[in-house]
Amino acid sequence: MFYIIGLGLGDYKDVTVKGLEIVKQCDKVYLEAYTSVLTCGVDALEKFYGREITVADRDLVEQGADDILEGSKDHDVALLVVGDPFGATTHTDLVLRAKEKRITVQVVHNASILNAVGCCGLQLYSFGETISIPYWTETWQPDSFFPKIINNYRNNLHTLCLLDIKVKEPTLESLTKKKKEYMPPKFMSVRESSQQLIQIIEKLKESEKTLDVTEDSLCVGLARVGSESQQIAACSLRQMAELDLGGPLHSLIIPGPSLHPLETEYLKQFKI
Amino acid sequence: MFYIIGLGLGDYKDVTVKGLEIVKQCDKVYLEAYTSVLTCGVDALEKFYGREITVADRDLVEQGADDILEGSKDHDVALLVVGDPFGATTHTDLVLRAKEKRITVQVVHNASILNAVGCCGLQLYSFGETISIPYWTETWQPDSFFPKIINNYRNNLHTLCLLDIKVKEPTLESLTKKKKEYMPPKFMSVRESSQQLIQIIEKLKESEKTLDVTEDSLCVGLARVGSESQQIAACSLRQMAELDLGGPLHSLIIPGPSLHPLETEYLKQFKI
Repeated sequence: MFYIIGLGLGDYKDVTVKGLEIVKQCDKVYLEAYTSVLTCGVDALEKFYGREITVADRDLVEQGADDILEGSKDHDVALLVVGDPFGATTHTDLVLRAKEKRITVQVVHNASILNAVGCCGLQLYSFGETISIPYWTETWQPDSFFPKIINNYRNNLHTLCLLDIKVKEPTLESLTKKKKEYMPPKFMSVRESSQQLIQIIEKLKESEKTLDVTEDSLCVGLARVGSESQQIAACSLRQMAELDLGGPLHSLIIPGPSLHPLETEYLKQFKI
Repeated sequence: MFYIIGLGLGDYKDVTVKGLEIVKQCDKVYLEAYTSVLTCGVDALEKFYGREITVADRDLVEQGADDILEGSKDHDVALLVVGDPFGATTHTDLVLRAKEKRITVQVVHNASILNAVGCCGLQLYSFGETISIPYWTETWQPDSFFPKIINNYRNNLHTLCLLDIKVKEPTLESLTKKKKEYMPPKFMSVRESSQQLIQIIEKLKESEKTLDVTEDSLCVGLARVGSESQQIAACSLRQMAELDLGGPLHSLIIPGPSLHPLETEYLKQFKI
């Protein structure tokens, strides 16, 4: 049997009772550690579960998937994922591959950032399409997500922006070498994402387009949602580009233009 | 201290370890039982927690909120909610009122239908605005949600339709009486919602409008997501209007017109 178990967003105690029971009785437990991270480390998880966990990086989950699944033909194998199991395409793909191999799959759901962002008081039913903001490089500065923000805004919908994570990325220099070297992990902050958004806005201004979302637009920054050290800030995009909300993970929301009175009231407590 | 604890979607074992610890040490525990329901009853929850639970209906949560909150000034009080705490406006309002009274609030997140629908294989990042389909009456047959489905569809986004729940609704006749009488609880099925959608489509056809979504459009019905008896079906809206997916809760998805290959592949297992 193959289990995919959502761990939620905060620490080791955010696993469900059902999830914990399964982890305890499985023969082998992997932790997927490249699409998201918990605020606690693997050690804390191992201590709490009283068992060993194998950290599964991108190579293992994507190229070594067959090995993981092969093991679950005769044994109980669990893959732990931060948030909810269906938060990343990789996991959907894994379930599909398991089913092709006639391996029974059980999914244990948990909170994901997609529903937990409700903690800032913006109504979940008023969110439009979710977007992802990638890290820019010197030669690659995509802005194709920006029209989606604008489209949501014009429909008076909020946009949740998921911010990039780089974990175990090989360095450019080592790509051609036999032995890969890895960059230190990095997690995009609300500050960095706001700076990139402002650069896109500046560029669009040059072509004299009228913009719905500008540096003065209200935005909401969230850090470590669901953990004890959770922080939320509501201010202009310009202010957000200067703000330090501490350690990862961060998310940014660009709210629609007219808020419900309850949303306005709730956001007040997070005003900078 | 006032706690709002998400219970997830399935049964009593879907509470998180953190949530369970809090429930066990609280002085008073309420269960909000009118915006959603679990597949297990209150008895199963009480037995699992080893403690008494007060079922809070709409009157208690909305009109009796002050009593609930007053108690949490000197004691630990928990409100249990199905899904995630921020899935319903009522709970956001309650947190706000608690903060006004200077009562400390802690939220324990959990899975909600908004992220758990990922279990059908449709990518969560490709969903547009979520809509609610209400029960029609003889005199009230709203269809204002339909343009939102169309708008999502034209943006190639999926629409999650949350289906109406009527729990402890007073009968029309008893509204003017001193002693209210209540209708039996009812939960809209994917079949009923599809029938209503088809009626809307038929009416729009009369005005000769070109329609993007018709009786032949693909839709996905989901029942009891996250529970052991979970059922998913993918077929045309016309077929869905005949389908029985069993007990509550149900949700319906109208996918965007062009699916990702992985979405198509995943949906195949649910084809009728």
